[in-house]
Formats: sequence, C-alpha cells, structure tokens
Amino acid sequence: MRQVNVGLVGTGRIGKLHAQHLTYRIPEANLVAVADIALPAAQAVAGTCGITEAYSDYRRILDRLEIEAVVICSSTNTHARIIEEAAAAGKHIFCEKPLDLDLARIDQVLATVDQAGVKLQVGFNRRFDANFKRVHDLVAAGQIGAPHIVRITSRDPQPPPLEYVKVSGGIFLDMTIHDLDMARYLIHDDVTELYAAGGVMVDPAIGQAGDIDTAVITLRYAGGAIGSIDNSRKAVYGYDQRVEVFGSEGMITVANQKPDSAEWSTAQGVQSSLPLFFFIERYTESYIAEMRAFIDCILQDTTPAVTGVDGRIPVVMGYAAWKSYAENRPVRLSEIDPATGSFGETARSLLAIRGGERR
Amino acid sequence: MRQVNVGLVGTGRIGKLHAQHLTYRIPEANLVAVADIALPAAQAVAGTCGITEAYSDYRRILDRLEIEAVVICSSTNTHARIIEEAAAAGKHIFCEKPLDLDLARIDQVLATVDQAGVKLQVGFNRRFDANFKRVHDLVAAGQIGAPHIVRITSRDPQPPPLEYVKVSGGIFLDMTIHDLDMARYLIHDDVTELYAAGGVMVDPAIGQAGDIDTAVITLRYAGGAIGSIDNSRKAVYGYDQRVEVFGSEGMITVANQKPDSAEWSTAQGVQSSLPLFFFIERYTESYIAEMRAFIDCILQDTTPAVTGVDGRIPVVMGYAAWKSYAENRPVRLSEIDPATGSFGETARSLLAIRGGERR
Amino acid sequence: MRQVNVGLVGTGRIGKLHAQHLTYRIPEANLVAVADIALPAAQAVAGTCGITEAYSDYRRILDRLEIEAVVICSSTNTHARIIEEAAAAGKHIFCEKPLDLDLARIDQVLATVDQAGVKLQVGFNRRFDANFKRVHDLVAAGQIGAPHIVRITSRDPQPPPLEYVKVSGGIFLDMTIHDLDMARYLIHDDVTELYAAGGVMVDPAIGQAGDIDTAVITLRYAGGAIGSIDNSRKAVYGYDQRVEVFGSEGMITVANQKPDSAEWSTAQGVQSSLPLFFFIERYTESYIAEMRAFIDCILQDTTPAVTGVDGRIPVVMGYAAWKSYAENRPVRLSEIDPATGSFGETARSLLAIRGGERR
Amino acid sequence: MRQVNVGLVGTGRIGKLHAQHLTYRIPEANLVAVADIALPAAQAVAGTCGITEAYSDYRRILDRLEIEAVVICSSTNTHARIIEEAAAAGKHIFCEKPLDLDLARIDQVLATVDQAGVKLQVGFNRRFDANFKRVHDLVAAGQIGAPHIVRITSRDPQPPPLEYVKVSGGIFLDMTIHDLDMARYLIHDDVTELYAAGGVMVDPAIGQAGDIDTAVITLRYAGGAIGSIDNSRKAVYGYDQRVEVFGSEGMITVANQKPDSAEWSTAQGVQSSLPLFFFIERYTESYIAEMRAFIDCILQDTTPAVTGVDGRIPVVMGYAAWKSYAENRPVRLSEIDPATGSFGETARSLLAIRGGERR
Repeated sequence: MRQVNVGLVGTGRIGKLHAQHLTYRIPEANLVAVADIALPAAQAVAGTCGITEAYSDYRRILDRLEIEAVVICSSTNTHARIIEEAAAAGKHIFCEKPLDLDLARIDQVLATVDQAGVKLQVGFNRRFDANFKRVHDLVAAGQIGAPHIVRITSRDPQPPPLEYVKVSGGIFLDMTIHDLDMARYLIHDDVTELYAAGGVMVDPAIGQAGDIDTAVITLRYAGGAIGSIDNSRKAVYGYDQRVEVFGSEGMITVANQKPDSAEWSTAQGVQSSLPLFFFIERYTESYIAEMRAFIDCILQDTTPAVTGVDGRIPVVMGYAAWKSYAENRPVRLSEIDPATGSFGETARSLLAIRGGERR
Repeated sequence: MRQVNVGLVGTGRIGKLHAQHLTYRIPEANLVAVADIALPAAQAVAGTCGITEAYSDYRRILDRLEIEAVVICSSTNTHARIIEEAAAAGKHIFCEKPLDLDLARIDQVLATVDQAGVKLQVGFNRRFDANFKRVHDLVAAGQIGAPHIVRITSRDPQPPPLEYVKVSGGIFLDMTIHDLDMARYLIHDDVTELYAAGGVMVDPAIGQAGDIDTAVITLRYAGGAIGSIDNSRKAVYGYDQRVEVFGSEGMITVANQKPDSAEWSTAQGVQSSLPLFFFIERYTESYIAEMRAFIDCILQDTTPAVTGVDGRIPVVMGYAAWKSYAENRPVRLSEIDPATGSFGETARSLLAIRGGERR
Repeated sequence: MRQVNVGLVGTGRIGKLHAQHLTYRIPEANLVAVADIALPAAQAVAGTCGITEAYSDYRRILDRLEIEAVVICSSTNTHARIIEEAAAAGKHIFCEKPLDLDLARIDQVLATVDQAGVKLQVGFNRRFDANFKRVHDLVAAGQIGAPHIVRITSRDPQPPPLEYVKVSGGIFLDMTIHDLDMARYLIHDDVTELYAAGGVMVDPAIGQAGDIDTAVITLRYAGGAIGSIDNSRKAVYGYDQRVEVFGSEGMITVANQKPDSAEWSTAQGVQSSLPLFFFIERYTESYIAEMRAFIDCILQDTTPAVTGVDGRIPVVMGYAAWKSYAENRPVRLSEIDPATGSFGETARSLLAIRGGERR
Repeated sequence: MRQVNVGLVGTGRIGKLHAQHLTYRIPEANLVAVADIALPAAQAVAGTCGITEAYSDYRRILDRLEIEAVVICSSTNTHARIIEEAAAAGKHIFCEKPLDLDLARIDQVLATVDQAGVKLQVGFNRRFDANFKRVHDLVAAGQIGAPHIVRITSRDPQPPPLEYVKVSGGIFLDMTIHDLDMARYLIHDDVTELYAAGGVMVDPAIGQAGDIDTAVITLRYAGGAIGSIDNSRKAVYGYDQRVEVFGSEGMITVANQKPDSAEWSTAQGVQSSLPLFFFIERYTESYIAEMRAFIDCILQDTTPAVTGVDGRIPVVMGYAAWKSYAENRPVRLSEIDPATGSFGETARSLLAIRGGERR
C-alpha cells in the first residue's frame, strides 16, 4: 500500500485531532512530523502519535523532501503565508477554514497554489458528515426534484471565549461560514444575494465585543431557490445541527445526532438523550472522512472535494452577511469587491454604530 | 344547560364544516338557521344538520331575535358588510379570516363592533390546534426561557385554483396570513419589521396571475426575537405544518400529523405514512375547538380568544410582506398606512414589473 | 339517506359513548331509545342525545317495531339473555365483549342468533383503530411477506377497581382478551396453542382477589408463526398499545398515540408528551368506526366485521391462558372443552393454590 | 503511560477487528504478536497492524514473557484448551463467547483460571454498546422502579452458512446466547426458568441441518420479572437489535442504529435509512469499549466487566432453551446438570424427531 507522508502544522485542539486520525485511522497516511510555535505542544502530540519529529518551526517540515503533504491547523492569520510557502515547496495542502479574512490575500494565495500545481483542500468537514452527505446525494440524485427551499439550523452549545470573539471575524465569518458552505454544498448552487437579521440575545458582552450571537440569514440562489440559515451561539440542549431541503418532488431532513437512542417514559413524560455536545463529538467521523478524502485525492491525483474556491466563497458570503446586517438590506455578493480587501473593520464599525438602533 | 342559538352565513366548504360542528360536536351551541346566496347549498346543509331554516338572504338570520350569534363564512368581500349589519342587530360574531383586504375598511368595521358592544372572534383556527397550543403554552410557561428564534414551516399540498389566486390577495394575504398570526401567537409578541423573499417555482401560471408560490419571510419582533416563515403552495408529500421556538433555556418543536404511526421496514428502506392531506383533515379538531371557544366566550362573557385586532394585524403584515417583496427590502409595519386604504393593487403592479428581474 | 333506528341497552361509560356516537357522529344511525336498570342514567343519556325514550326495562326497546338494531352495553352477565331476546325479536345486535364467560352459554347464544338470521357484531373496537387497521392491511397486502413473529404490547395506565377484578374473569378474560383478538386479526390466522407466564407485581391486593396483573403470553399460530403478548395492569406513563408484525419480507410497527407531537429540549434532556391516557381517549375514533361498520353491515346486508365466532374464540383463548398459567405448561386450545362449561372457577382455585409457589 | 502487551490468537473476522482496535484505538494496549493456524492470515493482520511477530502456533505467544494478556478469537472448540494453557502461563485472558459448548469443560476451565489467579473476560460485547449500557444504567439508577417485563428483539440480517449452522450449537447457543446474556445484564437478575417456542420459517435447509431459525423465548427471573426474547435468522431490512425494560415506575426502550438520520418525503411516502447492516457495523464501538475495559481491568487490577461465570450461565440457558423447545415445556435452569456434560447431541436428536410434529 502506497502511503502519503504528511507533516502537520499547529497542534491545537483540531490539529491534535487530525494528527491522531492521520496516525491511527487512515492507513494510507503516514504522519512523520508535527510543528507548533509552542514546541512542548508539538512534542506531546508527537508522543501520542508515536513519531519522533516535533518542531517549533514549520519550515522544517517544508524542508523535508519525503513529505508530500502538509496539514495546516495553525491560527487563521498564519494560513496564507504557510500555504504559499508550502506550495513553493511543492507540497499538497490541507488547510483549516478560513483561508484568510482578507479576500485580496485569499486571491493571491489561490493564484500561488494554482501556479505551483499542488492540491489544496479546505477544511469544511461537515460536507463529509454521513447525514449531510446523504442529503446532498439524495438531492443530487433528483429524489426531491428541483430544490425550492433550503433550511439550515446551526446552533452552538456555548459561545466561544470573548477573546476569540474579538479576533474571529464575528459570527458570520467564524460560525456561519460553515453553514454558508453547507448552503452551497447541499444543492450544488451558488448564492447571489443574502439578507442577514440578527441581534445580541445570549450575552451583552458579545455585543460589547462587536459581535452578535443570534442570526437568521436569507439566501437567494442563482437557480431561484431560497435558503434560510438560523444561528445561535448558545443552545442549552447541545449542538443543534439540522438541515432540510424542500423541492418540487419532495423534502429531505436530517435530525440531530445523539449518543444513544434511549427513550424513557415515566409518569412525568417521555424523555430522550440530548444531542452530542459539540463539534468534536458530533463531527469526529467527518473529520476522519475529510482527511481520508484529502489523502485519496493525492493518491488518485483527483481534484480535492473542497477546493480553494470553495474556501473563498463563504468568506465573501460572510462579508456580505455583515454588510447586510450593518445596512439592514439585502446585499448581492457582487457588491463585495475583493480589490478593496477586507472591509471587516468598516462593517464592525457600522455594527457598533447601529447597535442601539437595531436592538 | 344554556345553549347559544346560532345562525350561519355562507355554506361553502368551511361553512358546512362549522355547521356540522355547531350541530353535532358542541352541545352548548344550537344552530337554528343557515343562509347562502345559493339557496340549494343552504338547504343541503340544513338537511344534514336537521334544521328547517335555510335562507338565501342572510338578513333573515339577523332579523331573528332568538339568534344570539352569527358565524360568517361567506366570501371575503362580504365580511365587512355582514359584520356591520350583524353588530347593528346586536349579534355576537364569528368571522372567517380575513376581515377584509382593505385596512381602512377593517378599521371601520372594528369601530362599529366596538360601539355595538358585541363580541367578534376571527377564524384563526390554528391557534386551537393541540400541537401549536402546546408550543404556545410551554413558551408562556417559560419552559424555553426568552424566545430568540421562531421558525414556521407552512406548505400546502397543492395550489388553489388560478381563479382564486387572482382574487385572493396573493400568497401573503391568503396563505401566509395564518403563519403571520401564528408568529404572534406562539411567543406573545408583535412583529415590527419583516423581509419577504420569494418566487414562482411551482407553476408559471401562478406568476402570470400576479402571485408567487414560494416564500421565506424574516420577522423582527418588538422584543428582539427573530422569526422565519417558509411557504410553498405545493408540497407533494402533503400538508406540511411545523413550528419551532428556540429560546435562552431550550427549544420546542412540533411535527406533522399523520393518519397513523405505522412504520414498515423492508429490504428497500423504512417507510411511514404521509402527513394528513390538507386543512380539512389536519385541522378538524382545531375548527371544533375554535367554535367551542367562541360559544364559551358568549356564555362566560369573556374576551374572544382571537379578537378583531388579532384579525387586523396579520393583514397589515401581509401587505408589508408584499411591499417588502416588491421593493426587495425590509419593511417596517409602521410603513403600511391604513389611511391610504389597500395598496394591494400597487404592490401587485410593482410585482408584475419586477417579475423578470427577480427570477 | 336511509337511517337505521337503534335502541341501546346499558348507559354506563361505554354505553354513553356509543349513544353519543350514534346520535352525533353517524348520520346513517338514528338512536331512538335507551334503557338502563338505573332509569336516571338512561334519562341523562337520553337528554344528552336529544331523545325522549328512556326505559328501565330493555324489553321495551325490543318491543318497538321500528327499531332495527340493538346495541348491548350492559354488564357481561346480562349479554347472553339480551342477545337471545333481541334475536327473537328480530333485531340486529351489537354486543360489547365478552359475549359471556361461559363457553357453552356462548354456543347456545350463537346458535340462537344463527337461527334468527340477524346480524351480530362483537365489540372488539381495536380492529377499527387506524393504526392497527393499517398494520392489518399492510400484512394482508403482503408487504411483509409471510408473518413469522407477532408482538403485542398492551398495558393499562391503572388497574380496575378490586371489586371489578373479582368478577371480571381475571386479566386474561378481561384485559388480554382484546389482545387475543388482535393477535388473530393482525395476520388472519388462528392460534392453536399458548403459554402464559405471569405474576402479581403491581399490587398484592390483585393477587388476593385471585388475579394476576402482569403477563407474557406466547402464541403458536396454525400457520406456523409465533406471537408474544405482554400485559401490565399499570403503566405509569399511560396507555401503552403497540403492535409489531415481522415477516419474511419486512416488519411493521405502530407506536403509541399522543395528544400532540411537541418535543422540547432543555439542558436537562429532550422531552415529549405522554401517550393518551386510556381507552376512552385512545380509541374514540375506533369506537365510532366500529359502530359505523355495524350500521353499514345492516344497510348493505353484509357480514359483520367482527362475528359471533370472533367473539367466542378469544374467550377460549382466555381460558387456555388461565389453564396454562395455572399448570405452567403450554395449552392447546383444543384442550378447552366447551361441553364442560366455564372452568374459570377451577382455574382460579388452582391459581390460588399455586400462588405462593409461582411467585 | 503504562501499556499492556497483548498477544492475539485467531485472526479471522473478529480477531482481525480486535487486532486493529488494540493497535489503533486503545493507546493503553500494545499488540505485539498474533497467531493463527493459517500463518498467511496471521501475517496479513500483522502487516495491517504494523507488527512483526506472526505465528502459526499460538504457544509461541504464551512463551513470550513480556506478553501479559492474550485475546482468544480462534474457533470455539479451541477456547478451553487455549484458556487453560494461557492461565498456566500466567496470562490474563479475553475470550470470545462461548467458552465451550460443554458445561463440564467450562467448569474445569473456570476452576483452572481461578487457581491461576489471572483475569478472564468473556466477549459479550453488547454490554458495552452505548444504547444497551444506557438502558442498564437507567434501570440500575432506579429510573423505572422495579423491573416487571424485559423485551429483547434480536434478528440477524441473514443466516450464517449452513456449514456453520451444523457445528454452532444451534440458534440458542450461537445467536440467542447474546440475548440471554443481555437479559441478565439489563436488570441485574438471574433467570430461573425459560420456555422456548420456535420453528423453521426462513429456510428449510436450516431445519434439515438440525436447527431452527425463528424463536420466542419467555424468561422468568428470580426476582419475579418476566422476559421475552424474539429471534430471527433473517430480517430483510437489516440487523434488528432493540430492547425494552418496563417497570413499576416507567419504561425504557432503545431503537435500531442507522447510518444517518435522513428522512425523505415524497408523494409516495416518508422514507428513512435502513439500520446498520450487521454486527461489524452496528457494534464497532462496543468491540472497542469491551477491549478497553479488558485492558483497564488489568491496569487497575479490577474484576472484569464480564466474568467467566457470566460466560457460563448463558450456555446453561442456551441448553435449557433447547430442552424446552424439544420437550415443549418450561424448563428450569436447575434441570441442566453440568455433571452430565453437554446434552446438545440429545437435544438435537429430539429436535430431529420432533421436527415434523412441531411444524
């Protein structure tokens, strides 16, 4: 069996997960080195994975000729640079989302990757979840005819730390971005315009940090369908991840995933278990499947299942959502001009200004 | 047992249903006369209900002193006039929705009713459905804390006849109006602004008749919550009527109602029954319950469960939805000025103009 | 529309229900008289149903020539006599189950009915429940191939009064009898042998009254299939009524029926409503449907959906269950000899003797 | 982290699975050698697991001093001997069920293990399934009060090869044995008597091989509860594994596990996915959990979660089931005398004799 030698950059929570999967769950992959600016973190993961190479400088991974592929799990602000260097070194690249928060920078990166002729897969892992994939496949097979309405419910069990909120790009670029990708994935169509309504309902501190915590986003697809995403930073009952596609010939839904199917009935009512708590529990298998797909696309020399363009578009959509929220009007994706770079700061300022009025 | 003598005007499909319920299902009511401009229709219903009085002129009902209450099921354009005459005759009034399509006219009618001191209940029957009532009650009891997101899915199994589409006020005033009422009912809060996206996806003839057949409407509530309604004129799998309320302490959902709970598993898959076909099957019990509530409010001398104002507001919301759709922007309910009367024609014209562009 | 004039005997809980259905829910029926040894009870029901004829002596119903059909809801020990007299008077007969607790007496009655040429329908209402009927129909349509295993769960929310327990024939003849009929109905096959295990788990007083309160009965069908019924006199979560048929090509199940489909999720868990409380709530529609079927079989001159023989066989099965329980061995139905009359007393004595040993 | 060095004997389907779990899923385990009489099979598994030691003779594993624990997955007729030799070599032992088909032999083995002071865990993996464990835990926590009725449905998607049927000990010792263990596990109580009904419904060839393919077994527990197991060798819709415990204060059920929660509604009906196909898919996680529990009990020096006695009792129950089936009467477990050794041959002969009569 031919194996792909892999180096991994960034051994935080998600990096550690990928390292374990590459080592223990994907026979076709061979993790040979990990790097993290915090060397002890890299060493710990190396220990867990039974490998000897742990670096503080990711460039040492790029220097190793036998490494074919790099998995980038470092902080967002380092993604673009590492991708460019990895591409220059001829490595295939898996990068966690988002590629960057600056669209112009993303475009540079994609051009570089393109010229280098290496593969780039972006970490929209939910596409590999068995539930959503089933919806996608049934839609693609025409089981519900032409899609008319797409509904996505995506609610986290708890907000991220406020420090993260401040630098994350806000709910639309940090959390909704997964749903914006899902919206495209489920029915194979692009969104041309969106309208975002939202507010601060969970925690005023989130508002003070310049973000919102609750949102409903209406999407118009190029093909005529309409979508609706609803988000909350805090569902007390756990991670709420459901989708529904309605079309001319039927409807498909998927429910939340639970740790067990136990249902107990007493004089007080009928009870069942809460959904799996958060993304680590809920999406374990999808993380494995996306990494396997990455390794496979190298082995088979095929196009990655989630391309660089697939990574770019949800960032555009996230900005459109902020602009829509800030100006309280539908915004066409064509209004977001990459040449002007990130307009995030502007949006956040507008948001701050409009805060009182909108609530 | 004291009984309320009732006369019923309009013996079409829904009138016939109410007549049977008043006769056979509500012991406290005593249906004594029915009227319909088509006398044979009135006579047929009278026969079914074992009563002798069937008129072509509803005024003969108003003339009978022993009749305390009138149930109005005639066509929408007659509602306002019959309400006014019934109020003048001192009858309590149950009227099917909508009261009228002209807001100024509705305001006249409500003033007349108010002066006459009679009761007026509007036919938003879904409030009396056991499922939605349960959601309402659990929300009211604080089971999910403060409401953040309301989701309403409401899809008909098949479009109405095109002739009806042309005079109905369109999807927002004919079909969505029930959901606009539901939106208010579920969380006891008023909507201040809405944004309607939609299109013609089911049948081009509906578009040619000046209507749309698919819509997603975003609602902003006075209290800060956000709502989302999705509508389709045609769900091939049957009548799709679900709601969800998400809040700070939890979530409540209700599913579709089916004729049976049978589930059969074969080598091909696991199958279950389709939802009940349409409103007659799905909402039978709610029609009985709303009529019982009307009779009860007379017997107990209490405020009707659905007041004239409750009947007026969804009409305002329906117009706001048309305006929003036509102008593709969020519209505040305060923009709809009752003094100018119905602006429906304008909206429909705009719609016609924008048709090509929007699709 | 031709109507069948009906008289009803016995205005207890179930009699009152049938009276209301005959009056208000079945247009083809015309309830003209009711009788009860407690005249005020008969008068009360007559009042509710808007009829004038209320008797203490049921014979006055039999004397009225315009009455075509009699509905017998009096106590079990009067069934046989009233059926015989009604048959002699040429009336069609609907009789609540069981026909009698004495098999020889049942055989006399069936012979009398046969000679009189009148119709006799026995009150196994559950056959008319939409859920069970659906199972029956799908099985009959071959959807699951040849039946292999039948499972019936039937648990009451609370035990009957002890006074009733003492005269009821015990759990197998009072409660399980419905399931024994269901076992035959679901797969159109007869049971040839059964084995009953059981005990007193709910309330020792039930044991002291000579009965048991919990049982599992294994059935062997003539065609080779095996069935299993489980019963309890007390399910704290409400009326538990489910069936499952498994066969060579699939499986069909039905779930409990609930007052609403609400499901609410909080930090503590996901909750839903309890099943409908008891037979009055759960089987309302089936009571109407069985009565409609009775009226129809008169109007159409067809064989009743539940014949006298269908009423007899579950009594045989109930005795076989008692014998099996008492002797702790499988008992063939052919062992229950009608010529010896009811052996119930013997069985109960054996039961009393074995009580200590079995627990 | 201290690791337990493990050797594995028998690299068939289940052995291969355990080898992979020990290597890749359980960090506290260190698989160092595998053995199989078919050396290439052992070598293939060694390759997959990245280890160098693959033997044809399992004794070479027992000879290696650094190996602390042996996992026995060879054919049933070798279990007893290997356990004894492993115990003599001071190894802790995990052995697939059943320990042996001869009760006297089992007793010898258990005595040997006892004297050697090593741990023995038997492979009843279903106890470690999250669903059944939840039921067990809720029952143990008193959530449903005192257990009254236990129901276990256990149906395979397809019969085993006829060659296997002939040597397997038949349905009760091969397939039902898991359910007999489950029956004990779910409510922490022992069964004292059972009654087995069954037949050949799936395939006459199974009957010709001296086995049956469909069964319903009634269990009486020492504490008074009653249980019912139903089995089929062929559920066309997939692996059907459900349990229900009903008690004085409530009920707990678990449903089948599906690959996804997709539900699609079309004009033809509402469909969902079939259950996971068979034990490899359905019980993957439970196989990992049982092996982790085994490694943990060594590391923590605690009693195994499934002891040798737990492995012995279901074999007694399996024989009681055969005896009950053959003699068509309830059989007490005390009737199965270990001193007489396996009576399996007798039972199978009786079965052969009774075959015609019983069907």
